[in-house]
Amino acid sequence: MHNVLAMDIGGSHFRVGLFDHEGRRLEVLEGDTSLSGGRDWMLDQLRELSRELLKRADYPVKACGISFGGPVDFKRQQVRSLHVSGWENFALAQWVEKTLSLPCRVDNDANAGALGEYRFGAGRGSPSLFYITLSTGIGGGFILEGRVHHGRDSLAGEIGHIPVSDSGVVCACGARGCLETFCSGTAIALRGREWVSRRPESAAHVLELSGGKIESISAQAVAEAAAAGDSMAVGIIQETAHWLGRALLTVVRILNPDKIILGGGVALAGTVLLEPVRQTMRDLASSTLSYSTEILVAELEGYSALYGGAALGLELAAESGPIAS
Amino acid sequence: MHNVLAMDIGGSHFRVGLFDHEGRRLEVLEGDTSLSGGRDWMLDQLRELSRELLKRADYPVKACGISFGGPVDFKRQQVRSLHVSGWENFALAQWVEKTLSLPCRVDNDANAGALGEYRFGAGRGSPSLFYITLSTGIGGGFILEGRVHHGRDSLAGEIGHIPVSDSGVVCACGARGCLETFCSGTAIALRGREWVSRRPESAAHVLELSGGKIESISAQAVAEAAAAGDSMAVGIIQETAHWLGRALLTVVRILNPDKIILGGGVALAGTVLLEPVRQTMRDLASSTLSYSTEILVAELEGYSALYGGAALGLELAAESGPIAS
Repeated sequence: MHNVLAMDIGGSHFRVGLFDHEGRRLEVLEGDTSLSGGRDWMLDQLRELSRELLKRADYPVKACGISFGGPVDFKRQQVRSLHVSGWENFALAQWVEKTLSLPCRVDNDANAGALGEYRFGAGRGSPSLFYITLSTGIGGGFILEGRVHHGRDSLAGEIGHIPVSDSGVVCACGARGCLETFCSGTAIALRGREWVSRRPESAAHVLELSGGKIESISAQAVAEAAAAGDSMAVGIIQETAHWLGRALLTVVRILNPDKIILGGGVALAGTVLLEPVRQTMRDLASSTLSYSTEILVAELEGYSALYGGAALGLELAAESGPIAS
Repeated sequence: MHNVLAMDIGGSHFRVGLFDHEGRRLEVLEGDTSLSGGRDWMLDQLRELSRELLKRADYPVKACGISFGGPVDFKRQQVRSLHVSGWENFALAQWVEKTLSLPCRVDNDANAGALGEYRFGAGRGSPSLFYITLSTGIGGGFILEGRVHHGRDSLAGEIGHIPVSDSGVVCACGARGCLETFCSGTAIALRGREWVSRRPESAAHVLELSGGKIESISAQAVAEAAAAGDSMAVGIIQETAHWLGRALLTVVRILNPDKIILGGGVALAGTVLLEPVRQTMRDLASSTLSYSTEILVAELEGYSALYGGAALGLELAAESGPIAS
């Protein structure tokens, strides 16, 4: 018997968890990310919470796996985030090895989410799956026969940045017309705010859900208003579904995976988003190329990436040889 | 020492080849496909040419691999072509086994082309590659660690049918706005003919290359006229490159393969097409997600798929155990 440690480092929230040898979640400590605190603040938090969990573990903790909310050079096990200062080319796995004396493996949050759903969620046992996280941004991960496909530059799965329109706005990545500019939580919230500022008379419900403040309108509020039948919100969700459906059909055509799994906060909208996505895919597809790829919502809800961290830790523990029980 | 037999069954042309144990091409017999002859005519041709090559082989022929120009159910080893009568659900591998007494494996022409380029062409030794054939239609195949990824319904790689535009014309598959309606040889030829019929005064060169007949204008004639600087032809090739560049960037984002290899007749246009494709990809991509995927033209020219058939045969021969030399 042994345990592993898992970390999920995100832009707004972070978690450290203790998991047993079969990937069951034993305990999770968490907090909100302080962007102004930068890297060193975050590392302090991770060290303290990890030490706390290591103390509480009943069995030897054999390894640590990390989901990082930004690009990761998987071969070098380095973080490549350009957005938050101090992380660029930081050897995060090495830091854990030195600080906590645990072998460690890091991957980006979309790949970790894919792995989490593959091992413990909606993708259990699938020969192939594509996971998409719809959150502040959009990421993805492709798993074939149990392994994440990282690609030449550790950039496989970056479906948020496929070009879907020549007329799109500029993306956080610097390019124009990326899927992310149409379907991310940020994009949905922005469209909600634009609509409300232009047509306040039609926006009572979504404003009410946002405490009366335009600047507080979130993707979640838009989705909730759409679920309640608010026509302005329904329009925004349907436009999102139009672009997302096209992107998912693209994944079906290129990879024809057994499953496509939608995770991240936006996917929590559920049926109100999923139904028009499926409708778009039916409208666009042809009966002569019928496919049986399933489109599902993630089962581990907000925890796909943390479970992915646990899966990385368990992989490492298994590689380090037989373990005395 | 042993040999293998390879077949490439296409809509306009077919080939049967004899290859040695290292995949060297020894001899090829070929002919034009008679669509009116249907399946039985084609099987007669394949049987006769195969028997001829089997007679000429210096070493025992251990297996046969086939590239089929249409959808193939790889798991069942059945052809699924709906376009040409008699092929639907035909157990082609089984037919070879019975008729020629050889173990046989069939795949579609795009997957076979991918395998051919991986084993013997521009993709030798690549951990991952995506092959695209630009011909009458458009197909593709993804190879990861030496194996074709077929996907749940044997439909992975069908990049010709990703939806790229809401305003596209109806595709041969029945859907609307597929990549194939913009970038196939058929689409390029059609656009050339449309242009010439509307603006005959600007079309002297492309008409001359086509024997003076509008209905004889081919994608190749358009590409040749573009290479010679004909501005109408350059415009058509640049529009093709615009859509193709977007599709290739989509493949880079989703799979980040080591190589993307362009095969098929349209790819023979070379630089006149490849340069604007690369330019489109540079224009659309962002410097924050820089990638090193190489975009190359197939090395085996018209023979990628036949070499893929040889590779399938060699796989089978290797699986059937050690061979007495």
